[in-house]
Parts: sequence; C-alpha cells; structure tokens
Amino acid sequence: MENRIAFDFRSLAKLITKIENDRAGSEELLMDLYKESPETTVIGITGPPGAGKSSLTDRIIAEYRALGKTVGVVAVDPSSPFTGGAILGDRIRMCDHSTDPGVFIRSMGSRGSLGGLAPATIDVLNLMKSAGFDVLIVETVGVGQSEIDVMSIADTVLLVLVPGMGDDVQALKAGIMEIADIFVINKADKDGKERLAAEINMIIQLNRHRLAWEPPVVETVATENKGISMLMDRISERSVWLKNNGVQVKRDKMLNQFKHMALDRIGANILAILNEGGMFTRWISELESGKSNPYRAMKELIENLKIKWGK
Amino acid sequence: MENRIAFDFRSLAKLITKIENDRAGSEELLMDLYKESPETTVIGITGPPGAGKSSLTDRIIAEYRALGKTVGVVAVDPSSPFTGGAILGDRIRMCDHSTDPGVFIRSMGSRGSLGGLAPATIDVLNLMKSAGFDVLIVETVGVGQSEIDVMSIADTVLLVLVPGMGDDVQALKAGIMEIADIFVINKADKDGKERLAAEINMIIQLNRHRLAWEPPVVETVATENKGISMLMDRISERSVWLKNNGVQVKRDKMLNQFKHMALDRIGANILAILNEGGMFTRWISELESGKSNPYRAMKELIENLKIKWGK
Repeated sequence: MENRIAFDFRSLAKLITKIENDRAGSEELLMDLYKESPETTVIGITGPPGAGKSSLTDRIIAEYRALGKTVGVVAVDPSSPFTGGAILGDRIRMCDHSTDPGVFIRSMGSRGSLGGLAPATIDVLNLMKSAGFDVLIVETVGVGQSEIDVMSIADTVLLVLVPGMGDDVQALKAGIMEIADIFVINKADKDGKERLAAEINMIIQLNRHRLAWEPPVVETVATENKGISMLMDRISERSVWLKNNGVQVKRDKMLNQFKHMALDRIGANILAILNEGGMFTRWISELESGKSNPYRAMKELIENLKIKWGK
Repeated sequence: MENRIAFDFRSLAKLITKIENDRAGSEELLMDLYKESPETTVIGITGPPGAGKSSLTDRIIAEYRALGKTVGVVAVDPSSPFTGGAILGDRIRMCDHSTDPGVFIRSMGSRGSLGGLAPATIDVLNLMKSAGFDVLIVETVGVGQSEIDVMSIADTVLLVLVPGMGDDVQALKAGIMEIADIFVINKADKDGKERLAAEINMIIQLNRHRLAWEPPVVETVATENKGISMLMDRISERSVWLKNNGVQVKRDKMLNQFKHMALDRIGANILAILNEGGMFTRWISELESGKSNPYRAMKELIENLKIKWGK
C-alpha cells in the first residue's frame, strides 16, 4: 500500500509546534500547505471524562494498522495554563503505537487563553489532513463548546458514554448529542447499560425526523477488545453513506468552519481597535460612575463601529 | 427588612421571557432597566453533572431566607433544541421554595443555537441584578466554555465536585478550575474524599502565586444539611474580602463581559455582511473546485473587511 504522507514525522511535529506557538504565522503556513484530502477518513472521538476514549482510540488505531493504513492522532488535553504542559493520564496507553512508523500521535495542551484551544486544534487537524494520512483521529476530553467546534472537522463523530451516567446523559450539552454520528456505550459490561441504551435511543427517536443519518449505537469493552469489529463496521458504513450522501454534510461543516474562522480572526481585530481607541477604559469608568451601563455601551458600539466588505 | 425588589414576580417573569425570545429587543429593554446593584451578592454554582448542585442551591436559598434576604435563582438547563423545553430533573427539589414570596426561580433552556445560551443568560442575570434581589444565584450544569462565560458575572463562584472523580478532576477544563472562588466537595461522606481534597489543594498550590484570593475548600453533604453553615461562612468571608479588594476584580470581570458582549453583537453583523455579499457561497465553491482553501479565504477576508471606529 502506497504511503501518501507528504512529510516525515519530524518535519510534521515541527510544523505543528509552529502552528501552536505562532498563531499568526500558522495562517501563512496553511495558506500554502492546506489541501483537500478526500481519501482521508477523519474520525472524532469525544465524551465525558472517564468514558475510556483513549483505550478506544488505541483499539481503532490497531484495527486500521492491521489494514496497513496510516493513522494520525490529535489528542486534546486540558492542562494548566500555568505549567503549559499536557496532562498525560491514560494517554500513555497509546504509546503502544509510538514506535510504529505508520502512526503519528500528537497531544495538545490548552496552554494560554480560555477558549483558545479550538482554533489551534483545527489548524493542526487541517495540516494533518493535508499531510495525507489515510485516517485522522481527533480525541477530545469533555463535552463543551470547544469540543463541539473541534468535532465539526470530523466526518464521523463517536460519542463515547458509559453505563451508570443515569440522568446525566440528559445533562450533556444538547449540542454534543447532536453531533454524534455513532453512539458508543463503552464499559458495556457494567451495570446500567440497558438504561443508558434506552436514553440514547429516546434521543435518537426524538430527532429522527430531522436526521439524514440515523446514528447507530454500538456496545464495546475497549480494554478487552470487545465490540471493536462491530464498531469498525459501523464506521465503514458511515464512510460509504458519506460517499453517497456526504456532499451537503461536508458543505455544511465547511460553512460552519468558515464562520468560526472568520469570527475568530476578526474578533481579535475588533477588540484591538476598541482597545486602541480607549473604549473599554471609558466604558468601565462610565459604568463605575453610574453614567452608563453595558447595554448603552453596546448601543454606542453598534452605532460607531463601521464594518464594510469591499476591495 | 426592606424589600428592594423593583418588580413583582409576574412582571419579572414576563420580562425574562421577552429577553429569551427577542434577543434584539432585550438590549433596548436593558438599556433602560439595567442598573448597578452593589448590594446584591451574586453567587455562581457550577460543576459537572451529578455533583449535587441543585441540593446545594436549595440549602443556600434556605440559609439566606432564614436571614430574611430575598433570593433570585437562574438555573441553566441544557435541553433539546427540538423540544424547546427545559429538563427539570432534580431541579424539582427547589420547588420547596416555589411558594415563598421572597424567592424567584427561573430555569433557562438552551433552545436554539449552539453556544447561544450564555448571552441570553447574562442578560437575564443583569435584569435580575437590576431588580434588586439581595442574593442572586446562577446555577449551571457542565464545565464548558459557556459555563465559564456565565460565571464571569458572579462575584463568588462555587465549583462543586464529588469524591470518586479521580483523575477526572484534572480533565476538567483548566478555565473552570481557575474561576473557582470556593471549592465545594459535596457528598463528602463518600469514599475518595481525601484524594479529591489533595488534588484540589495541589491545583491551588500551583496557582497560589498568582491568586489574590486563595480559594478555600469546604466539605458538604447537602442532602443532610452538613457543612452548609461552614460554606455560608466562607461565602461571607469572600464578600468581606471583595468589599475591601474587589474593585479590580469587578473591573476585570466587567471588562471581560464588555468584550464578550461586543464580539457577540458584532459577530452576527459580520456574518450577515459576508452572507449578503455571497462570500460563503463563493468560498465553498472555490474550496470544492480546489481553486482555494479556507486559509486563503481568511486572508481575503482580512484584506477586504474594513473595520473602523468613529462617529
């Protein structure tokens, strides 16, 4: 099988570090390097802490490697912005594959600003997609907005849940339930499996009328390699479905991505313009003196910030 | 004790519905109604699903009511955007207070767009702050970015955790750990309390040098009313500290709020301008034909979107 990967892993790792550390420069870089890679299957794996996502990722890597496919993995770790380091935790398990020349694994920490992880992760994923891996896996811990943003880049999103979550399934962000293309009940040997399956099915039924793809539910015990081949079958079915029906899905995802990128890039400019104009300082002092309030400040903003598109 | 609340609850409920349903109109409304209310204590209660936040909220309401203080509560429920309804779950417990004329409780669902909950919640909180409750409590389920955004409005944020979370404490969003002013170990009669306390203390120690307020750790069993008076003492200490040191804290929070509001309001305008100009359609077709890529599209965006501040 031909290896389509455009870079050696050392160069790839260097490029990723550049993207993480130099956000402005990363755009220049990706303007040249980005290319669509329709042959790449992009799998997102997400779910709450403790669901066993890393074990599952490990098994999926092994399955693809057995087929001779190259695999790139981006694991998004929350980490202290103070230490700057990623917390490894159970990610160490994935080191089984660390000496495999067909597997490239990268952990990303959230170093830096709140909510700032998604844009960098998306850039790294776009780079790795352009690099030409057969399979690209992005694993995120958590169920928040930035996970939803990151998952927008995946063709197929696995939402990994575990029995015993009880009512908490309902408390998961509605958005995260909606982006699931395949539900995985991991640790399916535990009590509470039936209840979880029933809750998932209820959610699927409720949304059925608006779903082009009805997400299947797969039970696994990743640590014992149970249910994995079933899961791989569902992933293949999803890929086939995407080939036949996926143009609109891809277009919608890309549109979302454009919107996110646009707001991300323009937002920083707007804040800088307001800051230079001393607006924030004035608004705060007007608020503290009782002369104005945030809503009047926003009205002033809308009336005075001129935005125009054109050469 | 004088009741400072400016509206009867029926009018307040109507205003909140207006804010939820008419985002544009809500700004007009709040331009007039918003006022700073330095006497109002705003308490944020957040943490992962199943931590017992509602029971804790219930106890805190009872404590303030025993002191004759009026309490407003905003409970943010994730809910299906399809049904539009809030999932009540254990929120029903708070109905103990539903007939109390000194307590106003409002649940908010996430109906509608992804990530769209925070702006509406912040507007509702600002309205309730302006209404003059002695105490305002906002309870959010989850640990994502929108919870962090909502909590930016609270003077004192309780992060509620439970024993047995193990390593998952580290997997919580770094941001959520940073906004905690008081750590609450609820269900403290469960195994694993020492380990959780040790992990929390490690996080506090790591960040100690940069913290003006060192967050205390309180153990509670909310369902048995244990540890609640200790928690109330810590909340009082925080209030006293804020009176003496809080000007900069409040200023920073307000600055953040201004920035969020500004990006929220301007972002929609920018997307509309790009949409009207047919930019998204063109970018998608250029991407699909391989003529361009998202990063070149963003370069075009930056070069052609003119933003100017001025009368």
